[in-house]
Amino acid sequence: MTEKLILDGNAVANAVKEELKARIADLKTKGITPCLATILVGDDSSSETYVKMKGNACARLGIDSKKIHLDKETTTEELLDVIYQLNEDANVHGILLQHPVPHQIDERKAFEAIDIEKDVDGVTSFGYGQTALGFGKYPSCTPAAILKIMEYYNINASGKHAVVVGRSPILGKPVSALLLNADATVTTCHSRTENLASHVKQADIIIAAVGKPNFIQGDWVKPGAIILDAGYNKGNIGDVDYEACLKQASAITPVPGGVGPVTISMLLKHTVDSAERSI
Amino acid sequence: MTEKLILDGNAVANAVKEELKARIADLKTKGITPCLATILVGDDSSSETYVKMKGNACARLGIDSKKIHLDKETTTEELLDVIYQLNEDANVHGILLQHPVPHQIDERKAFEAIDIEKDVDGVTSFGYGQTALGFGKYPSCTPAAILKIMEYYNINASGKHAVVVGRSPILGKPVSALLLNADATVTTCHSRTENLASHVKQADIIIAAVGKPNFIQGDWVKPGAIILDAGYNKGNIGDVDYEACLKQASAITPVPGGVGPVTISMLLKHTVDSAERSI
Repeated sequence: MTEKLILDGNAVANAVKEELKARIADLKTKGITPCLATILVGDDSSSETYVKMKGNACARLGIDSKKIHLDKETTTEELLDVIYQLNEDANVHGILLQHPVPHQIDERKAFEAIDIEKDVDGVTSFGYGQTALGFGKYPSCTPAAILKIMEYYNINASGKHAVVVGRSPILGKPVSALLLNADATVTTCHSRTENLASHVKQADIIIAAVGKPNFIQGDWVKPGAIILDAGYNKGNIGDVDYEACLKQASAITPVPGGVGPVTISMLLKHTVDSAERSI
Repeated sequence: MTEKLILDGNAVANAVKEELKARIADLKTKGITPCLATILVGDDSSSETYVKMKGNACARLGIDSKKIHLDKETTTEELLDVIYQLNEDANVHGILLQHPVPHQIDERKAFEAIDIEKDVDGVTSFGYGQTALGFGKYPSCTPAAILKIMEYYNINASGKHAVVVGRSPILGKPVSALLLNADATVTTCHSRTENLASHVKQADIIIAAVGKPNFIQGDWVKPGAIILDAGYNKGNIGDVDYEACLKQASAITPVPGGVGPVTISMLLKHTVDSAERSI
């Protein structure tokens, strides 16, 4: 049996955070404390948990967070006003709008209102375009995390065939773009893809970004493939049938402890990057 | 022998122009003449020819063109000033910066300076991002032309496997994005792709966007595939080895008379769209 490499997201996240600590200390000597503003609209309990996790992660590193909690009846215009104020606030270096937002809000309009210089979560179309054309400052955090894990483990995408399952604006599309810029040949699959298994079967690198528990099956995986599972479904279950896929793969991210922790560290990194650029 | 469908770009372009004529006449009754500003820097003869062709195409439909010809020694700052003036000019509805520009100019910086509302050639990262996320007003013209030809000939991309050869910011990347939004499964290949022929061989739809004459070989083409050739190399030669690929394909664009004429009609259409939006 060949050795399996378990891609340990906590190790990657810790390495990122260690590097950030020095940079944050340096910023503080200059009188600047990086600050992430988080906006939560309504009282969805998972969203509350996510925002709290992000706030705690900031606090542990000495990054300020400015928590804004809006009523679930908030209108798009009211939300836009809050975003505009944060855009203008020189003490705020990053803005995160926790999504999904309540249905009465035009989520895309709200995302687009975020200043490109503070779009540390990588949700604007402008930021997406810059990322895809190769000069984005803040790619979406999960795609950035996937590339960071690959970098940490010296997984070179150049010339490799990466198959991305999913095409969401903050995951499937930007991770496809980043992999393409890393010189992978990239196939993007989705709900309308015919013969999905046969596409996945050809991949040297599989990115699971579909949001369905245990969706990617073991017999869809070419022996030796590398699997990065960006899924995070209820009950700490990824998009990949882990045990079955582990048998086929040469390297794989677990869930939890894979892409998730690195995603949060990318959010922190982007906030620090933005604080440094604000000088 | 099965029948081959030759995808006639001139027929598509004429249909687009017929529709535009009525819209332009309507705009003129409102006192508005659509106007495309073209910027040519230096004296490259092919660039001059392209700009002239575009100006003539405008004139034939009654679209104004404002031709700006800058010295080959023009600096980035000087070019930016011209672009800023055109951004402010209410009589200008579209701005086209003919590229490539001389080497001393930061082409990307110049593209990015174009107001998103006048980026009818689809060169800004902002416009690219909007297109990729599904709400762009002005995709790059050649990708838009490819989708228009498919629409005209009722070629439905949904669920089909499209293989794009090329990943440039104005061709390979945006056509990949448009095909993905049209529900194709999209593979983007490029100079670093390993086993290119085997990727192309799987395609239901092949997009040649590589800029190398006769590059796509007949034996790379799955029988029945649809081929759209966006190549336009010296001597009116496409990126596809036409005679050899014609034998395999069920439908194919010729060069010349394929994607080229539709590309120009998309530029005209975007200029008219922008003039209508300016009201």
